[in-house]
Amino acid sequence: MFERLRQARQNQKVRGDLQHLLAECRQLLTERGEANSVAIAQRAIDFYRELTPEAAREFFGVLATEFDPDPGEVLRLAERYAVSRSPENLIELARAAEPPRQELLRRLNRAPQGTATIVAMRAQLLQRLRQDKSLSAVDSDFEHLLSSWFNPGFLRLEQVDWASPARLLEQIIQHEAVHAIDGWADLRRRLEPDRRCFGFFHPALPDEPLIFVEVALLPEMPAAIAPLLERKREAERDPKQFKVAAFYSISNCQPGLRGINLGNFLIKRVAEKLNDEFPKLKTFCTLSPIPSFVDWLTKVDAIESPRLKPAAVAVLNSSVASLKSRHGKDLASLLAPPAAQTEKGSAADAAKRDADADRLRGLCAFYLWNTHSADQTPSDPVARFHLNNGARLERINVAADLSRKAMRQSCGLMVNYLYDLDQIESNHERFVNGEANASRAVKGLF
Amino acid sequence: MFERLRQARQNQKVRGDLQHLLAECRQLLTERGEANSVAIAQRAIDFYRELTPEAAREFFGVLATEFDPDPGEVLRLAERYAVSRSPENLIELARAAEPPRQELLRRLNRAPQGTATIVAMRAQLLQRLRQDKSLSAVDSDFEHLLSSWFNPGFLRLEQVDWASPARLLEQIIQHEAVHAIDGWADLRRRLEPDRRCFGFFHPALPDEPLIFVEVALLPEMPAAIAPLLERKREAERDPKQFKVAAFYSISNCQPGLRGINLGNFLIKRVAEKLNDEFPKLKTFCTLSPIPSFVDWLTKVDAIESPRLKPAAVAVLNSSVASLKSRHGKDLASLLAPPAAQTEKGSAADAAKRDADADRLRGLCAFYLWNTHSADQTPSDPVARFHLNNGARLERINVAADLSRKAMRQSCGLMVNYLYDLDQIESNHERFVNGEANASRAVKGLF
Amino acid sequence: MFERLRQARQNQKVRGDLQHLLAECRQLLTERGEANSVAIAQRAIDFYRELTPEAAREFFGVLATEFDPDPGEVLRLAERYAVSRSPENLIELARAAEPPRQELLRRLNRAPQGTATIVAMRAQLLQRLRQDKSLSAVDSDFEHLLSSWFNPGFLRLEQVDWASPARLLEQIIQHEAVHAIDGWADLRRRLEPDRRCFGFFHPALPDEPLIFVEVALLPEMPAAIAPLLERKREAERDPKQFKVAAFYSISNCQPGLRGINLGNFLIKRVAEKLNDEFPKLKTFCTLSPIPSFVDWLTKVDAIESPRLKPAAVAVLNSSVASLKSRHGKDLASLLAPPAAQTEKGSAADAAKRDADADRLRGLCAFYLWNTHSADQTPSDPVARFHLNNGARLERINVAADLSRKAMRQSCGLMVNYLYDLDQIESNHERFVNGEANASRAVKGLF
Amino acid sequence: MFERLRQARQNQKVRGDLQHLLAECRQLLTERGEANSVAIAQRAIDFYRELTPEAAREFFGVLATEFDPDPGEVLRLAERYAVSRSPENLIELARAAEPPRQELLRRLNRAPQGTATIVAMRAQLLQRLRQDKSLSAVDSDFEHLLSSWFNPGFLRLEQVDWASPARLLEQIIQHEAVHAIDGWADLRRRLEPDRRCFGFFHPALPDEPLIFVEVALLPEMPAAIAPLLERKREAERDPKQFKVAAFYSISNCQPGLRGINLGNFLIKRVAEKLNDEFPKLKTFCTLSPIPSFVDWLTKVDAIESPRLKPAAVAVLNSSVASLKSRHGKDLASLLAPPAAQTEKGSAADAAKRDADADRLRGLCAFYLWNTHSADQTPSDPVARFHLNNGARLERINVAADLSRKAMRQSCGLMVNYLYDLDQIESNHERFVNGEANASRAVKGLF
Repeated sequence: MFERLRQARQNQKVRGDLQHLLAECRQLLTERGEANSVAIAQRAIDFYRELTPEAAREFFGVLATEFDPDPGEVLRLAERYAVSRSPENLIELARAAEPPRQELLRRLNRAPQGTATIVAMRAQLLQRLRQDKSLSAVDSDFEHLLSSWFNPGFLRLEQVDWASPARLLEQIIQHEAVHAIDGWADLRRRLEPDRRCFGFFHPALPDEPLIFVEVALLPEMPAAIAPLLERKREAERDPKQFKVAAFYSISNCQPGLRGINLGNFLIKRVAEKLNDEFPKLKTFCTLSPIPSFVDWLTKVDAIESPRLKPAAVAVLNSSVASLKSRHGKDLASLLAPPAAQTEKGSAADAAKRDADADRLRGLCAFYLWNTHSADQTPSDPVARFHLNNGARLERINVAADLSRKAMRQSCGLMVNYLYDLDQIESNHERFVNGEANASRAVKGLF
Repeated sequence: MFERLRQARQNQKVRGDLQHLLAECRQLLTERGEANSVAIAQRAIDFYRELTPEAAREFFGVLATEFDPDPGEVLRLAERYAVSRSPENLIELARAAEPPRQELLRRLNRAPQGTATIVAMRAQLLQRLRQDKSLSAVDSDFEHLLSSWFNPGFLRLEQVDWASPARLLEQIIQHEAVHAIDGWADLRRRLEPDRRCFGFFHPALPDEPLIFVEVALLPEMPAAIAPLLERKREAERDPKQFKVAAFYSISNCQPGLRGINLGNFLIKRVAEKLNDEFPKLKTFCTLSPIPSFVDWLTKVDAIESPRLKPAAVAVLNSSVASLKSRHGKDLASLLAPPAAQTEKGSAADAAKRDADADRLRGLCAFYLWNTHSADQTPSDPVARFHLNNGARLERINVAADLSRKAMRQSCGLMVNYLYDLDQIESNHERFVNGEANASRAVKGLF
Repeated sequence: MFERLRQARQNQKVRGDLQHLLAECRQLLTERGEANSVAIAQRAIDFYRELTPEAAREFFGVLATEFDPDPGEVLRLAERYAVSRSPENLIELARAAEPPRQELLRRLNRAPQGTATIVAMRAQLLQRLRQDKSLSAVDSDFEHLLSSWFNPGFLRLEQVDWASPARLLEQIIQHEAVHAIDGWADLRRRLEPDRRCFGFFHPALPDEPLIFVEVALLPEMPAAIAPLLERKREAERDPKQFKVAAFYSISNCQPGLRGINLGNFLIKRVAEKLNDEFPKLKTFCTLSPIPSFVDWLTKVDAIESPRLKPAAVAVLNSSVASLKSRHGKDLASLLAPPAAQTEKGSAADAAKRDADADRLRGLCAFYLWNTHSADQTPSDPVARFHLNNGARLERINVAADLSRKAMRQSCGLMVNYLYDLDQIESNHERFVNGEANASRAVKGLF
Repeated sequence: MFERLRQARQNQKVRGDLQHLLAECRQLLTERGEANSVAIAQRAIDFYRELTPEAAREFFGVLATEFDPDPGEVLRLAERYAVSRSPENLIELARAAEPPRQELLRRLNRAPQGTATIVAMRAQLLQRLRQDKSLSAVDSDFEHLLSSWFNPGFLRLEQVDWASPARLLEQIIQHEAVHAIDGWADLRRRLEPDRRCFGFFHPALPDEPLIFVEVALLPEMPAAIAPLLERKREAERDPKQFKVAAFYSISNCQPGLRGINLGNFLIKRVAEKLNDEFPKLKTFCTLSPIPSFVDWLTKVDAIESPRLKPAAVAVLNSSVASLKSRHGKDLASLLAPPAAQTEKGSAADAAKRDADADRLRGLCAFYLWNTHSADQTPSDPVARFHLNNGARLERINVAADLSRKAMRQSCGLMVNYLYDLDQIESNHERFVNGEANASRAVKGLF
């Protein structure tokens, strides 16, 4: 009895919050909303924060159906503009075709915590979007606006180090997505003088990194991840003497900013900054995972590629056949560290392993470069990201990451992508034109 | 001979810079432009800075004709959207209807000096727009973007005082538009403990105020400007004891941001800030000029107002007739300070002056409240600004500004607009509905 | 053979460093040293850092014997000053009587890392001093200078919180001396909004706290330490509502500053600061350990006190006899938590425990107030510190700290000292005059 | 009648303030003063600020007579120390011989505005000292302490530029002592990119420069001051290209720090800083005035110098005779700019002027190097300062400063002192040994 009453009251409050929120949103878009927008936006934000998940769902639904452009009006103005391409006609058309929820978001943003709230709203919207595709146009408006506001020209690049606020470092530990940070001691190792960490920050979210990258300063291009993460620093070495900067991890921190490409800008800004600070640096590269190599290898049947010579394709297919016939059920253990196989470890076994490693390397090179059936671009997301940024596929490293996760994903292989600052633009152009940006060594693999 | 050669070479360079600039702009909008945008944008900005005024003109022309939406495409998508209001159709339509130069500006903005350059570009465009209305849609895109980027949620409110950098103070001196600052000693007076100055700053232009307001802390609402500007401070008084904050000057600093309303937000933020800092403050008001009162009075023939009773209109018209018959040729000297008329100053003269002052006050009240024939809103821009912000017409002050400029514009009258923080929203609403937000005293004047 | 050679070379270097250091020190005190002091001091510091412990010992020895005043000269000038108390005579006498090593240290301080080096030097000297009392005059000069330089007027009070640099927080973890901080999560709890931490910093050592204090904001005066240190925060409560600020830990960070009283100043500055920030705070108190109570109780035979009435002394002595007869061998377990004794826990046992607790409380009150046989001041260092600062002995808490260390030291008792900002000066004066600054409740205990 | 009453009351207050101040001072030195020193010091400072000049005089008198060491006690301890040079004896002696007012000042310094007050006290004391030499030992104690506290190791070097707070720049205008700054526009010229200004700051007086130096970056060593001060900057030139840094003005800002040498440290720190920032800088020099050259020339009768060869002395004396016989009454106009003499300007006149300039140059070189009869050091204070710092007399410039002041002081001559960073130490040593640190060119002049 009481429970039903309580529930009814709760429902009433929920509906109340949502109705209040919608009333403020409508108000915001009136003329009155222009003059008093900060106060109205503040109230709207307060109501939004009170919404239950269901009410939020309903709110996004109303954004989709009530705050979109009027089709008749747009059509009328599009016809007028088609007849006369005058500035007045264009101005009116552009205004009518922009979904009103964009202006709604701009006005919500005027309140003190506006930007943070809108980023959080989009995170919630994205979760909802998975089940409800009818929200895609709403999300498109969020993305459009956030992309304009989180324009690289507005971002601050900041070094993160042991003098950074604990509050910030805590977020670095939490958001590191590639090679998990195991507490403060582990973090500290990654901030020693031979390491660097940089993040992008937006002035409206001053305490929250948007994305950050971790860099190791090294004497040479790294072939394995473990030495980079080891807690103990080697003998002190003056960081000014290092020749290679290896980007070994890049992590996004804001789910609400999905789809807004910041990584490309971050890597280049950091490379330029390090280039200025350390004149001896000659090489900027990554040490990157290959998240779905084993997946692809498991599924691939017969490799075809109009861009390779038939002989090369034949070699690749024979490698697939050979590996699958012997390791078909468990490709992940293909190169499992010898430690696990010591007893039977003979010279013959070692030779077999070497041959298998060569086969894997060749297949991996092909996979990273040219596997998307439709457009012949890489289907590996990391490869696509770096090659599209203008990097070059430099080296494929066997036994580079022996963690269980990496063995399962890529038989322990990792890649170096090379960022040659002078070649970035032309590399990107070549990539767009379908040419392989790969070192001679990698090209020799397939 | 040589001169023609020189001229030819110069022309060649001009054309070259423009062609290079356009090439980079086109590049920026390609897929390649996405990945390398910072470098391309940097080059585009460098070329833009080299443009001669004529070349800049031509550049804006190309922005107008080449970077606008394709009418056929928009029409096609508008028709599709009219048939089916699906998210996909809307997304495509919105993209096609947004002029591509908006994306161009967003990508230009990625370069280090991007925002400053775009603001400067718009300042140049606005000058050109006066003669060439065909650029209005281009300007509309600039305004649309800048308005989104200079959203109050992104602005920092900062106090300007004697500890501020000289570089900043120099700009305050230069941009003060209402009561000119006569050098550093004058500025210093305006930054004493019983004065306040606040400005809005954008993170991308950290050293440049966008707009600033000057405030005097006072024991009572001020009736004249001269005492506020006097160099000598009265006996020290603890600013915490003051009851009135009078906003006596507000100035924009960025011509490139014209049309982007920041003043409304600035005044309210500052009022709230002062309210927190000085709990004894009871009154927030302005002491404002009436720039075109004499102009209006000179031109006005017969006052009509459907909103006033006929008797009130009759009084106003008789005031007009009386003043014009006697001072028609020189309304500005109507209330010229008695100093200039001492010889003939008799009791009768003084009485006449008082009667004239009453007439002027009545006409001024009418002028400030209700003079726009079309919509019955104030035609005075300052009144429209403050009343629309939610302020109230509080008091009309005679002999409030005896400077030549003020005598010519308003016979020396000034107004106090009152910002009652609790009434701002409802005042604004009433104003929109055509009601007079005026004190009882002012209402009694017409 | 080689080893002897290596050893010989090493010895040579050691002697070389020391001789070079001494040469630079002598140089520093010449006229030439005045003009080029920064360069000479820099070299001296570099040599000092190279010294082996033995060489440092020798260096201190030379400071003691070579850089002290000339007895004959001082005597001559003291005689002259005794004859004529003229300014000239005094100036010369004061100069001659000041050990030249003070000027030496002042000149060493001119080098970039001078102050840090001198503080580190003193830390080393203090260790040496334990075995070699002949260095006491050298140490006296270090203390004299450091006390002048680390004058509270030169120190910055800074709040330490979760936004502080990790580098600083790491030092807080390391130096906490009263209730050890068990890693970053524990530290974080101590920096939540209902906790405060403040430190003193010197401008010449900007990254190193000199001393810090931890404070809990609470609804009432705390009777036990465990709840203050618990990781989980109770339900959120607005810190502005709290009435009590309890100083529960104060730790020095710089061994080289031993003997320079900073704690007194820190507590008072922090109390004033909190008083300003939280107007509802009524009570400033500590929750303090009693490090040697059990030690004293173990050794005490017959209590005598000329300041107490014979009856009170008799009660105290009967308590001692009662406790010792029953728990003589293991006073520490006297009030061990009942958990360990559950089985036999009867009503009679509980009554006994209560009686024992009362006896302990009485003896502890006496111990804290009046146990130093010579001057009748407290022999407990914590009590002496706070009572001398002007605090009052407010309450003795049983079962306040159940850690093994605290059981061993004080049978688990802790004390609240009360800092009444209005009474601090008069309390101090009364303390100096031998009066008890204790609450009525505590006075009733003995 | 009333006036006498008022006067009497005033006298009473004056006496009261002084008596209160002295009471607090005595209190500060007691044991009680140690524990409550901040509060007591605060009251003492407040009373001090109320003192009339007469009362301050009396206060200094009491400092002199009451807060000095006890002659009998010092003598007793000096005798003991002469018998046994033990650490204990020394510690007691040093304590007794240090005037108690030093400890008084150290305790006063604990109050918030302590340091600023003590510096202001000394400024007042120095004025008083001119008439009352009995205060010299008091002043010696102030100087001793301030010199320890304003140790270069505690000072921050800061660049002053157009981004500095107006409050600070105002002080630069006010304190510039060598070439007066004529308002903000003049100051701005001195802060352009080809100029530098650096000051020393103490953490306890964060807004007040202690001393500052102005530097011009130039293509070559400057021969005249006017071009350096001209408002208009020459064609833009990248400051990184300059080869010479000329220190053309150095000014103290704190009269209370007289006698505490900061200039030596400032020049060297700035030279090192510029050396780091501008790797192309080869020459650090000054362009300095010669304040008393004409004074000396007017008074000098017959030059004698044991360090010069008789022939050189003879030449100098003949120059003196020649100049005095012709210009005896008005040496200042000796090289007055030809403008004033145009009419009679003939070739013969020009030749005479050149000859006179040579004579002046020779005499000036001698004057700057070797004129103090007692110790054969320069009697010119500027020369003594720079040569003692380790600079070299590099060049004497005729017609270098045509201002009336400079003509009167030095017939318009100015000097370049050269700071060769590698030679500074050895130059200083040579100077102390009486050798001339002068360029070959200057040595050739006498």
